[in-house]
Amino acid sequence: MPARCSGMKDSSRRARVRLYVDQDLVTGRQVSLSGSQAHYLSKVMRLVAGDCVRLFNERDGEWLGRIVSSGKNATDLAIEECVRNASSENGPWLAFAPIKKSALDFIIEKASELGVERLLPVDTQFTVVERLNLARLHAQSVEASEQCERMTIPRLDSPIPLSRLLADWPGDRALLFLDERGGGQPLVHAVDRLRLRAAGTQPLHQPGFLVGPEGGFSDDEAEAVASRPFALRVSMGPRILRAETAAIAALACWQALTEDWRTVNGEE
Amino acid sequence: MPARCSGMKDSSRRARVRLYVDQDLVTGRQVSLSGSQAHYLSKVMRLVAGDCVRLFNERDGEWLGRIVSSGKNATDLAIEECVRNASSENGPWLAFAPIKKSALDFIIEKASELGVERLLPVDTQFTVVERLNLARLHAQSVEASEQCERMTIPRLDSPIPLSRLLADWPGDRALLFLDERGGGQPLVHAVDRLRLRAAGTQPLHQPGFLVGPEGGFSDDEAEAVASRPFALRVSMGPRILRAETAAIAALACWQALTEDWRTVNGEE
Repeated sequence: MPARCSGMKDSSRRARVRLYVDQDLVTGRQVSLSGSQAHYLSKVMRLVAGDCVRLFNERDGEWLGRIVSSGKNATDLAIEECVRNASSENGPWLAFAPIKKSALDFIIEKASELGVERLLPVDTQFTVVERLNLARLHAQSVEASEQCERMTIPRLDSPIPLSRLLADWPGDRALLFLDERGGGQPLVHAVDRLRLRAAGTQPLHQPGFLVGPEGGFSDDEAEAVASRPFALRVSMGPRILRAETAAIAALACWQALTEDWRTVNGEE
Repeated sequence: MPARCSGMKDSSRRARVRLYVDQDLVTGRQVSLSGSQAHYLSKVMRLVAGDCVRLFNERDGEWLGRIVSSGKNATDLAIEECVRNASSENGPWLAFAPIKKSALDFIIEKASELGVERLLPVDTQFTVVERLNLARLHAQSVEASEQCERMTIPRLDSPIPLSRLLADWPGDRALLFLDERGGGQPLVHAVDRLRLRAAGTQPLHQPGFLVGPEGGFSDDEAEAVASRPFALRVSMGPRILRAETAAIAALACWQALTEDWRTVNGEE
């Protein structure tokens, strides 16, 4: 059972460095960090024995860790106290066609900051990018999550064909299809429609968003998506947004319009 | 007086290349493009004599131009017909502290896509970046405007100190202050408040947004901004967004929530 803690204390607010660790976090335990995390603590942030950092994972929440020793290849920390409880952070999903590197990095980083729960790369007819470095994308997502104070890391799936995404899509999760060819309903209307469907139940069930590659979807693909009962075709305004802009704009709007942004820094 | 045209025709939709030109656009006129634009047309897009492109500026609107000759250093085009009228495109303003290069490029590009009318760099206490290459930033803004089908290019100001921004700020334009320290009102509430103030007049008067550098604003600066009668302190949700993410998320929400995104690809 996870420890309960009453909130973040001054000491933990001063510990600005925040790292995701997969190891169990519990008072008295010692945690050893190696590789890029040890390098970051000792060489980039120049932390030494006695300094505190915050460590977190989705199971145990966020804990203060005090550096016990800092060697060339490893930094050892003693876990002191829990400063934030674990939380599930159900967020929207984002299905996206891989696009060129800088734009893709941008999607991963910003989607993580904007609270996406699951990232689903999809192969489409006009997808140009052939190979995804999932380990690199996951690392970017972890770094963004560390910095933005998330308690969970978005799940990053392996790429699947669009047809399989549609076949496997859970029927009770709306899929907001960001259609660059226009003709869809404004995003605000789509959110209103989901609210109506939910008939007042809170919190609103999280949808997924789908955005295509630079060249958009083929007509057949767009038809295949739009014909699904869970799909809502959405237009992103009078200008033609790049794929990555559309994805991030839609996520930002969803979060602002639903419960998420009505709380301020995690407190109601 | 600008020519009136009835809408984009099939021939112009097929002309996928779209370039901003400062020269006057009027039927029968010949326009000569040089430098990077000539290179782009002949070497990147491999267009030849007889091919059509779309040319636009904020005064004359958008026109079809047919390539007459394409040399090593210049491409000459004959202006044929107007395909879209000029439009003023009043959008929100964005005041931002210069940040590291990739994040700044991101702000310029995405703000242009999201319809910002004016970009105002501000020097703040914690601003690290010392010199802005305004010509490079302007070029990025032009390129994004060309691709997203805007008719205007955002105005890019020279950097000014925050104190001067506040002193010169027009009193009738709300300034939504994206305060990373939290405690502001949710963005959706701020937009509701602006609607109430406008008392039903349409279109809603465009606000400005203000976002700080990586290190945020100093306490004195935050106080100086928040004390202005035109300022509204806004919180961007439970996670800590990077400066560039906050700026783009706020712009996307504003456009989605106000008139802009209720039209679909320029048509009501």
